[in-house]
Amino acid sequence: MSTNNKPTTVSKPLSLRSVTVTDNFWKHQMELVRKEVIPYQWDALNDRVPDAAPSFCMRNFKIAGKITKARREQGAAYEERIWPLKTFETLPEDINNMEDRFYGFLFQDSDFAKWIEAVGYSLTQHPDAELEQIADEAIDIVCAAQQDNGYLDTYYIINDMSKIFTNLRDNHELYCFGHLTEGAVAYYQATGKDKLLNAARRYADFIYDNFGYEDGKLRGYPGHEIAEMALIRLHEVTGDSKYLELCNFFLDERGVKPYYFDKEHPEVVKKGHENDDRYHYHQAHLPVREQTEAVGHSVRAVYLYSGMADAARLNHDEKMFEACEKLWDSITNKKMYITGGIGGTHLGEAFSFNYDLPNDTAYAETCASIGLVFFARRMLEMKIDNKYSDVMERAFYNGILSGIALDGKSFFYVNPLEVLPEACHKDERKRHVKPIRQKWFGCACCPPNITRLLSSISTYAYTENEDTFFVHMYMGGEIDKVVGNDSVHFSIDSDFPWNGKASIKASLDKPLSYTLALRIPGWCNSYTVDGINDMANCSEIKNGYLYITREWTDGDTVTLNFDMPVKLMQSNTLVRENEGKLAVMRGPIVFCLEEADNGKHLHNLSIDPGIPANATMFDDLGLPMSKITMQGRRYKSSACSDNLYKEYSPASDYEQVTLTYIPYFAWNNRGEGEMQVWSSFVR
Amino acid sequence: MSTNNKPTTVSKPLSLRSVTVTDNFWKHQMELVRKEVIPYQWDALNDRVPDAAPSFCMRNFKIAGKITKARREQGAAYEERIWPLKTFETLPEDINNMEDRFYGFLFQDSDFAKWIEAVGYSLTQHPDAELEQIADEAIDIVCAAQQDNGYLDTYYIINDMSKIFTNLRDNHELYCFGHLTEGAVAYYQATGKDKLLNAARRYADFIYDNFGYEDGKLRGYPGHEIAEMALIRLHEVTGDSKYLELCNFFLDERGVKPYYFDKEHPEVVKKGHENDDRYHYHQAHLPVREQTEAVGHSVRAVYLYSGMADAARLNHDEKMFEACEKLWDSITNKKMYITGGIGGTHLGEAFSFNYDLPNDTAYAETCASIGLVFFARRMLEMKIDNKYSDVMERAFYNGILSGIALDGKSFFYVNPLEVLPEACHKDERKRHVKPIRQKWFGCACCPPNITRLLSSISTYAYTENEDTFFVHMYMGGEIDKVVGNDSVHFSIDSDFPWNGKASIKASLDKPLSYTLALRIPGWCNSYTVDGINDMANCSEIKNGYLYITREWTDGDTVTLNFDMPVKLMQSNTLVRENEGKLAVMRGPIVFCLEEADNGKHLHNLSIDPGIPANATMFDDLGLPMSKITMQGRRYKSSACSDNLYKEYSPASDYEQVTLTYIPYFAWNNRGEGEMQVWSSFVR
Repeated sequence: MSTNNKPTTVSKPLSLRSVTVTDNFWKHQMELVRKEVIPYQWDALNDRVPDAAPSFCMRNFKIAGKITKARREQGAAYEERIWPLKTFETLPEDINNMEDRFYGFLFQDSDFAKWIEAVGYSLTQHPDAELEQIADEAIDIVCAAQQDNGYLDTYYIINDMSKIFTNLRDNHELYCFGHLTEGAVAYYQATGKDKLLNAARRYADFIYDNFGYEDGKLRGYPGHEIAEMALIRLHEVTGDSKYLELCNFFLDERGVKPYYFDKEHPEVVKKGHENDDRYHYHQAHLPVREQTEAVGHSVRAVYLYSGMADAARLNHDEKMFEACEKLWDSITNKKMYITGGIGGTHLGEAFSFNYDLPNDTAYAETCASIGLVFFARRMLEMKIDNKYSDVMERAFYNGILSGIALDGKSFFYVNPLEVLPEACHKDERKRHVKPIRQKWFGCACCPPNITRLLSSISTYAYTENEDTFFVHMYMGGEIDKVVGNDSVHFSIDSDFPWNGKASIKASLDKPLSYTLALRIPGWCNSYTVDGINDMANCSEIKNGYLYITREWTDGDTVTLNFDMPVKLMQSNTLVRENEGKLAVMRGPIVFCLEEADNGKHLHNLSIDPGIPANATMFDDLGLPMSKITMQGRRYKSSACSDNLYKEYSPASDYEQVTLTYIPYFAWNNRGEGEMQVWSSFVR
Repeated sequence: MSTNNKPTTVSKPLSLRSVTVTDNFWKHQMELVRKEVIPYQWDALNDRVPDAAPSFCMRNFKIAGKITKARREQGAAYEERIWPLKTFETLPEDINNMEDRFYGFLFQDSDFAKWIEAVGYSLTQHPDAELEQIADEAIDIVCAAQQDNGYLDTYYIINDMSKIFTNLRDNHELYCFGHLTEGAVAYYQATGKDKLLNAARRYADFIYDNFGYEDGKLRGYPGHEIAEMALIRLHEVTGDSKYLELCNFFLDERGVKPYYFDKEHPEVVKKGHENDDRYHYHQAHLPVREQTEAVGHSVRAVYLYSGMADAARLNHDEKMFEACEKLWDSITNKKMYITGGIGGTHLGEAFSFNYDLPNDTAYAETCASIGLVFFARRMLEMKIDNKYSDVMERAFYNGILSGIALDGKSFFYVNPLEVLPEACHKDERKRHVKPIRQKWFGCACCPPNITRLLSSISTYAYTENEDTFFVHMYMGGEIDKVVGNDSVHFSIDSDFPWNGKASIKASLDKPLSYTLALRIPGWCNSYTVDGINDMANCSEIKNGYLYITREWTDGDTVTLNFDMPVKLMQSNTLVRENEGKLAVMRGPIVFCLEEADNGKHLHNLSIDPGIPANATMFDDLGLPMSKITMQGRRYKSSACSDNLYKEYSPASDYEQVTLTYIPYFAWNNRGEGEMQVWSSFVR
């Protein structure tokens, strides 16, 4: 924060091209994404994956391109074919003989955008001429669909152009625009190629011309937020203030009464309820600066809050920043799972009420945790405080990584903290909880989100300002940083997450003054810093970061060693579901019990917290990782012939057992089985 | 069971007119029903209750009567007015200016039938000329609606007679017929008046003529079962075997492939799934004799199983009886709440899978527990075994009685075992759980079911055969029983449920030989029997009943004293939700914690099972009842400002407290607040 307390930019991510991720753990994940998921996504976009729900994404763009071309060439002679504005519930029998109409979900276009964004990031880490060519050709297809006026959403281009922007609440145009823009910026920043960026600009200009306060303009805003944060990126890469202006317009208008969505959908306004607050699902119930509680659809929420944080920073908007802080607190102190998952209920894929965090019916959508990371990083751009980066790290290593199988070939949309496969199959209330990861989804937002996030991970791990390099998450990398007219090259080594050792070595032509700001993880009770002689004079700790400001010379290496004992965690007692239960953590990793290691009926197990745990490494799952064993009890299962209820008798109702925990992100890589994060304990 | 093992009648309920209930506890409830609910129901049927969902029941009958009269009088000249077959989602604005069309739910007719049934029972306990007149006038209105051919369902009489019996799966005609018949039989048995009984017979004859195996007849069966058990009652009161035949037809055809409901609703049959089992919701997935697991909508299920038990008994059908036994076991050993509630999920108001018994999202519909009592009594008619009567008693005193407020003025449809009012208001998954009882419901099945059940309670408490009097539940009453050519008058005194003392005194003109069969409650570990000198020679215990066979003389009194200590109960460990928890019982009563006595955050309380409990009587709630105090712990609530997660530290995290339990049936008579039946305990 600046000295007069107005929010401003205190740190920014480094350009992806300045960072090469070399970290053992994360490079492995990034390579998985590059080799498995990006090609797989491309096949999915082109409906080439057998046994997976077809995407129709590229097909729609090609058809839109044909229509756009015909409209342009035939002008008034072109015979419009109007299709009804509806999506298909079930797929056509013969996928090869389908009409030239729009198929799939309203937001299908964004499948391409998320893919191109991930491709852009990936190319900065691993140049690939073949992939780049495929990307360029895809961009050509997409740009061919763009209308002359800049509009670019295939749902309306194919169906009925007279209806554009008539259903902002539901029909995802501005959502697709947002993703398109993010993808275009990423590809441009990675390759220097601006064809898609220009298309995004033209679309943004068209939106800018159609939305606003003047007569004839729409005073609306997105039903599914993302355009806000995307417009900020467009503004920052082009320097054009109109995109910031448009973002501000969307943020200022949202939630203002009379509601824009009421105008679009007057039928929802019931007699006697005209003045009620509505649209919590869309976070459009109140003006954004007045919102204090995270409500509604979780992904929409965190995308909105990310845009709000960006706007607070660029506009130096104190009220906006305060709202962001309150919303951050609402999520992380009242509505977040220990895994960094958010969204306690599948109804609306939404936040539940404070402290309502059921483990078995958790929604905890992968995309929502990813959005939480977006929000965290943007807060770090205004204020360096480990409360943000602790959550960011927690989500990365747990609730997000659980979304992708260890082999990169299947995904979780929903990330529960307790699973009974029988319930997933038989209980409608848990139908949203899949007991195994899926190869693809009809609504395929999570895999591409994982892809674009992991491919750009360095923009979350590190940020900088002119003279400070911030390390928020410890991961191995080679970083080039400019300091004034000079530069420094950092070589970071890290043993995270299995070991708390990390080192940052500076390579310099000549001595240079700058600051290293190193996060002290909130989970760490004790650590050592080595390599700096005069620490007392040149360092201070502020908001969970160790700042070392000095003149550095070539080869200077700071080595940190964060103690990583096994920790037992408890919830705030207002979390009813976790009464009498503990979770197991070590460093940033949350652990869990699986049936494969502990047998059925995990609920009968109880940790004995009095006996120290044991942590070892194992690699049965194909990746070296920590395994934790604890001593505890197994309460004896009743024989199936036992009555349902009987008088309590305490005598010898348990046996001593060893409980085996594996990292939560690695669960469900050995087939269907029970799992739980929170277990009862012997008090 | 007879000696050759085929099911047959071993006991039957006594005529209601032979029994006068004098029991303190149950007479109070019956008077509440008679004075509060029966008049209130009549007002509801006539849409005279402000602030309650209108019933339209009598209105529909009156309109149907007008139409029937016009059809009869005008013959071919009558101008049919066809209304679409749909029900109204919302009510018309002006209830007084509504058209002469059908309003309300498809099953609205049954509101009258349940009312008249309760009236009939009530008149046997408390003659009331004014009520009888109102009842007779209501019967006139209903009979005036009957078609000349006997058909009597106002939905089709008013809307479109050409469509009768075209949607057996959904449109509740046979359900309404069933309730009408039960009501008609009850009123006849109470008053000797047979106008409604004759109407029911004519309707039954019409159904008999239209259903069957011959060409042109319908090979269908009810979508919502009850006609089966109703037809048995009609058969037994008229002696006409065609009604047993029709019942058997419905039971034999149900669940046979190809499914009748598929024929009615071909659109549900998906390609590739033609041979799948379906209609579990209606227990029509398999032929009934092959069913082994209780599935689907709970009320439908127990009504079906009741009809199956009746049929097994009258037809001496071994396979049917075996199926009943398996279904009984499935419910009571795998799918029943400790309160006698059944139905674990609101989705389909249905049974969940084995051992899935969530406390907070329980459905446990009052009507379903009532149906379980119907089933239990019918099993007792074939086999005397306290496994049936224990459950019957459990349901009566707990899951059924909780359905009605202590003042008789409001009701619960759903009976959860754990309530957090905040969740009821904010969590869609608990929307079916009301935190306070309601005055009436749109689907008003539970209050009338409570009414008819409580008004006929003696037919559950006692049964008989020629020379044996069976006591299944202990309640005060004056009973006249015929033995051969003689008779005996029993005077029963009972202190249940607060005290285990009961006595049965015989008044005889001359000594008489007969058997008293007295249930030994399954919850009782120790009891005494007094008043009989030569017990060893004249008594035996069989299947939980004490049989005393001797020559009795006038004034002979058997006094039983069933020990009623406070008991802590545990669940089968396969019930995940109750892991580490105990419930409190005393005699037949299940107890619970309420916020009014114990403060908020009941989940932080823990019973210390090592310290004896204390039972006292109190009457703060207007009715004398038992209160139980236990010693235990309150785990300290985190301050609201606390983090969501922190490292576990055991030191001084609790305080010693006294836990106060009240009877579960009495919960929620002091306003909204938390409640729980199962609490954690100190292991």
